[in-house]
Amino acid sequence: MQGTNYGFRVELPLTFDQAVEKTVSALKEQGFGVLTEINVRETLKQKLDVDFKRYTILGACNPPLAHQALQTEEEIGLLLPCNVIVYEINSSSSRIAAIDPVKAMSVVGNDRLESIADQVKEKLTAVLSLLEQAAVTESR
Amino acid sequence: MQGTNYGFRVELPLTFDQAVEKTVSALKEQGFGVLTEINVRETLKQKLDVDFKRYTILGACNPPLAHQALQTEEEIGLLLPCNVIVYEINSSSSRIAAIDPVKAMSVVGNDRLESIADQVKEKLTAVLSLLEQAAVTESR
Repeated sequence: MQGTNYGFRVELPLTFDQAVEKTVSALKEQGFGVLTEINVRETLKQKLDVDFKRYTILGACNPPLAHQALQTEEEIGLLLPCNVIVYEINSSSSRIAAIDPVKAMSVVGNDRLESIADQVKEKLTAVLSLLEQAAVTESR
Repeated sequence: MQGTNYGFRVELPLTFDQAVEKTVSALKEQGFGVLTEINVRETLKQKLDVDFKRYTILGACNPPLAHQALQTEEEIGLLLPCNVIVYEINSSSSRIAAIDPVKAMSVVGNDRLESIADQVKEKLTAVLSLLEQAAVTESR
């Protein structure tokens, strides 16, 4: 797993469709529901008639932690749900990345949000670890 | 309009339903489509059986600027779409808030994103100004 300025990413030997399916399952295992799903390629084709790689934005929500966050910071809905993206590298390889909620929520300036964001971060990195481990096991 | 650490907010003499409807219309006027809509109250009731105020998270997307952002920063999907929230204060008053994309995207550390985020910020604050002006005119 690789950290970026604002998230975490893995690159796996999966087709795009496999990667989306496995990501949704791994999110569920860690207590996240997928509340929204944006097909970026289709949206850009429809609205602008441009071609773009296969790219999906999943809006992942852990209800107990989202509820805590909303009680701690009324307008935190501006930064919810937590996004997880899946995009194709080529026909047999995909990248999956998750937002770092600690970084994303650092702009809020509410100390009490920090421990909630930490818990979400732990769960999201666990999702990527699970996906990475499964890919290694399956390729053996 | 009031600025916060990570967004902009207006409070208007509108019912929650009116506020959602007018916000979606004002977003369209400024070139934003609403790609996602999360009914927070319903979601928390379903998942946790808790009662929460009426609160909606709209995922707003300006396709040309989103396309530019994605070409400039491949994983910016982690911070898209731009959220606009609507929530009730009481039966005749609602708050509408929009994310400040310049603040939200400051964590990315990509200078070339800045001018795109600036344009989105201008459009989102225009949406809130439109809503504010309309409320003043209608209350006369």
